[in-house]
Amino acid sequence: MKKGILVVISGPSGVGKGTVLKLLRERNDNIVYSVSVTTRAKRPGETDGKDYYFKDFDQFKNMMHNNEFLETAEVYGDYYGTPKKQVLDMLDAGKDVILEIDTVGAVNVKKQYPEALLIFILPPSIDELYNRLVGRGTESQEQLSLRLNSADAELKSIKNYGYVVKNEVAEETAEIIDNIIRSAHYTVGRNAKLIKQFVGE
Amino acid sequence: MKKGILVVISGPSGVGKGTVLKLLRERNDNIVYSVSVTTRAKRPGETDGKDYYFKDFDQFKNMMHNNEFLETAEVYGDYYGTPKKQVLDMLDAGKDVILEIDTVGAVNVKKQYPEALLIFILPPSIDELYNRLVGRGTESQEQLSLRLNSADAELKSIKNYGYVVKNEVAEETAEIIDNIIRSAHYTVGRNAKLIKQFVGE
Repeated sequence: MKKGILVVISGPSGVGKGTVLKLLRERNDNIVYSVSVTTRAKRPGETDGKDYYFKDFDQFKNMMHNNEFLETAEVYGDYYGTPKKQVLDMLDAGKDVILEIDTVGAVNVKKQYPEALLIFILPPSIDELYNRLVGRGTESQEQLSLRLNSADAELKSIKNYGYVVKNEVAEETAEIIDNIIRSAHYTVGRNAKLIKQFVGE
Repeated sequence: MKKGILVVISGPSGVGKGTVLKLLRERNDNIVYSVSVTTRAKRPGETDGKDYYFKDFDQFKNMMHNNEFLETAEVYGDYYGTPKKQVLDMLDAGKDVILEIDTVGAVNVKKQYPEALLIFILPPSIDELYNRLVGRGTESQEQLSLRLNSADAELKSIKNYGYVVKNEVAEETAEIIDNIIRSAHYTVGRNAKLIKQFVGE
């Protein structure tokens, strides 16, 4: 069984990651998504173990203490974490595992798992990103300002990524990311066993 | 104009590079092939400037002296070289340029042009490679032995490559290589200008 690839996808809020990831899953059935652990309250319609694993703060802290996370993040006072064992098991089963996390989390994943493939999604332009955030109309001025500052910080972290894709048409972006993931299976670093068959020890 | 990618394709003799490259050209019209310079005699049906640029040994030596090659190779007493200016001009015009060269040439290209994308084509198995070489029936025992030794040396150089693709079905191999080349356009390293638009100086 060839090991799957750990794929980290980041991008500023409002860039359209949700739509792209949905299309990506439809295109490629070797892709699975990690379910995160969170301390935030369950929202109506969310299912424990499907949308998130909902834990209280003490349980979360305990998991951190036991080194059970690949990365954790605090977002507006709530904690989120990617459970390590779940991800490593799926990779061992040959699945490509997608983590949709922020740029701080991405760097932490890369530290613990250097083979991870880091992909950053860009908006068509800075103006367009601003329009999308404002256009949602679901956020207070304060929330919007927080998101814009955070978008700026995220953009400054692109240098830590391997790939960058501008999201103009979601279908095309999904196709490009799908190809990047499929191609990553052919790197020399990920084919040590195959190469050994030809070159010997 | 976004710069093209310099793609180096290598693989042992008999691995089916010719068929794969033909299919690749049919799939992707942004791909062009570099025409090599050679000192070997023109064969019936070959056209100067299309199959090769045919030069005598003094002309070739002169070009080497003037640093006009990206790489040169001696194969069974004949000299071959990749003309640097032609390749760089095509890259500047946004074309992805394919060089089909051996593993020694590949390392030399990478030295002069570190952004080059190096792809190695493997046979389905060592046995299959042997069968293909013998099956040609066009070579003397001595030539065959030379080719097998050279295949062995080529395989030992895979570690210098970025990607490795096993050629089982030529159409699939061409598709995989096409995807690898297309995906390479999205590396962070190849998108400095785009990123600068978002991050500033």
